Amino acid sequence: MNTSTSEPFALVHIVGCGLLGTSLGLALTQRGVTVTLEDASPAALGLALDYDAGSSRTADSLPPELVIVATPPDVVGDVALRALEEFSEALVIDVASVKEAIYRALPGVSARFVGTHPMAGRERGGAVSARSDLFTARPWVICEGEDVARQKIRAFIVSLGAIAIDMSAREHDEAVAVVSHVPQLVASLTAARLEGATPEALSLAGAGVRDVTRIAASDPALWVQIVAANSEALVGHLKSLHGDLESVIAALEDTAAKGSKAIVSQAFHRGVTGVSRLPGKHGVSSQLATLLLVIDDRPGELARLLTQLGEWGVNLEDLRLEHSPGANVGFAELSLSQSALADVESQLVDNGWKIAGEGE
Amino acid sequence: MNTSTSEPFALVHIVGCGLLGTSLGLALTQRGVTVTLEDASPAALGLALDYDAGSSRTADSLPPELVIVATPPDVVGDVALRALEEFSEALVIDVASVKEAIYRALPGVSARFVGTHPMAGRERGGAVSARSDLFTARPWVICEGEDVARQKIRAFIVSLGAIAIDMSAREHDEAVAVVSHVPQLVASLTAARLEGATPEALSLAGAGVRDVTRIAASDPALWVQIVAANSEALVGHLKSLHGDLESVIAALEDTAAKGSKAIVSQAFHRGVTGVSRLPGKHGVSSQLATLLLVIDDRPGELARLLTQLGEWGVNLEDLRLEHSPGANVGFAELSLSQSALADVESQLVDNGWKIAGEGE
Repeated sequence: MNTSTSEPFALVHIVGCGLLGTSLGLALTQRGVTVTLEDASPAALGLALDYDAGSSRTADSLPPELVIVATPPDVVGDVALRALEEFSEALVIDVASVKEAIYRALPGVSARFVGTHPMAGRERGGAVSARSDLFTARPWVICEGEDVARQKIRAFIVSLGAIAIDMSAREHDEAVAVVSHVPQLVASLTAARLEGATPEALSLAGAGVRDVTRIAASDPALWVQIVAANSEALVGHLKSLHGDLESVIAALEDTAAKGSKAIVSQAFHRGVTGVSRLPGKHGVSSQLATLLLVIDDRPGELARLLTQLGEWGVNLEDLRLEHSPGANVGFAELSLSQSALADVESQLVDNGWKIAGEGE
Repeated sequence: MNTSTSEPFALVHIVGCGLLGTSLGLALTQRGVTVTLEDASPAALGLALDYDAGSSRTADSLPPELVIVATPPDVVGDVALRALEEFSEALVIDVASVKEAIYRALPGVSARFVGTHPMAGRERGGAVSARSDLFTARPWVICEGEDVARQKIRAFIVSLGAIAIDMSAREHDEAVAVVSHVPQLVASLTAARLEGATPEALSLAGAGVRDVTRIAASDPALWVQIVAANSEALVGHLKSLHGDLESVIAALEDTAAKGSKAIVSQAFHRGVTGVSRLPGKHGVSSQLATLLLVIDDRPGELARLLTQLGEWGVNLEDLRLEHSPGANVGFAELSLSQSALADVESQLVDNGWKIAGEGE
């Protein structure tokens, strides 16, 4: 491990050893940055230390140049205030999913504080899920702060391979309300409908309901704090949703009524429009195509496919294996650039692979 | 192609050349069954004929032993009645997503009609998405009918590799309301929130919102018919959801109020419970574990991994590649049996693979 002189900060202290804090510790330690760690839970701290995400602070530890507050949102304000007092030269940032509530909790915000948010969560949290490349190529929002401080934080974010995005705390909270907090709450409320379902009904569950409810497995304690802290931005969207749902229910209760079909139809059409606005995995400008291939369900088949693709120089943008219960075949959904599609498809067919479909 | 004498039906007529009708035509033709096709749309019929999913009926065509009505739900009743009249010896089944409305549309249901529903849709419909193994190992519900007819239909379903499940039309409609129709409507209503989002907000979208809204891309015209036809079973669930949403909104509008935190917390906890009730991809009894591996993002790496897994005799139950925009690494999420986990994990580590996490 080399101490790099080009790092924006040579000494970083991280408070909170969950998924984000531990991942940051791993990423920074691997870059040669000296990292110290702290967590209210000895177990969480112990795990992060075992992962070599940093070391505990001791009486000999030099003061950090940067303190990262990676605690649950409800204590970020207090922890940040304490850090600003304790380390009078350090910059302090937080990485919580809400921003306005954090700024409000910091009366007379210090010129040394900048609120940030890396878009890098998973439904599986905790130090155990940490990885040093969690932030690579992920958006990382930088909010209000003093100019020089923000420039240093931007350099820090870029050094971790993330994409720095400037937004006000208000803009950030509005954005995550619609692209993160509404979907989370909806997934949970939909999954709650499964509580009372019979095993027979559940046996008919397919990919649709699984995808819609996947993030309902996320940590309730964390999400209670997030939605409470962002309630202002969230409530408007939830009320619109509530109103739309009410209209659809009324239309379905009297399907013969004039206009009821139009209301239901509009709901589905608006959904098509909305989902089409999501940028591709690789940004708005990329053009990805998908190919669905039939794969025999035995060891080696997928490897054979991928070996051939490798030999042809094809780099998959994404790959998903779909496998029916008990079936002898599966399907591999390959995502690749639109421009490569025709060539790859004809090569696959020439080599005996069976194409089950394609799409965008 | 051999004409098999063991097929339950040697001559099958399919009305409707969408995803299901064309896939059935492909599956049956490949088994040596004589298939004739019909569609109100010459373009759809032409595509299915191009796919070799069967041939058009001519004056010389022998009468079918089975007619499969694979039209949109709103015309299934009429088409089934016409088929029962036209082919006086044939059994007639439908494959629509709703069942009670179909039976209601058939006054004095014939002893030759059986309502069925293969759980085999995709958000990409049409003949273009058809595949002969669409039904392999998928549940296929068989509803009310005369005993001998139902036994023949069961044999037919099993011959296609599907899993025959007996349910009354009422039970079926209740089941799909909760595991299919509510998630579909929720996905569409949630995706509609994205209509007004700024490009900056959309640039923060991650895997969560993508999964929740994926099926919102489905065909609105088809879904309007499905939810209208199943409104009775659906409305109750939607009202519960509406009530839960209302409680959460009220709690978020006054987060300081007594009990408001408990209401929000309960919503998330019920979501965790609900999603945990979904059976594993391979049925309730299976025990799958997942391993998350770091994979260099270059051609050949994944093939190397899968070749090794094949050499060790490991059969993946599922595999998903996760790939960050512009990143030099990706993650492969391997699903494998719980019992194989420890061995596979240690073999991977011994061979230099980097494990980023594990879970269930």
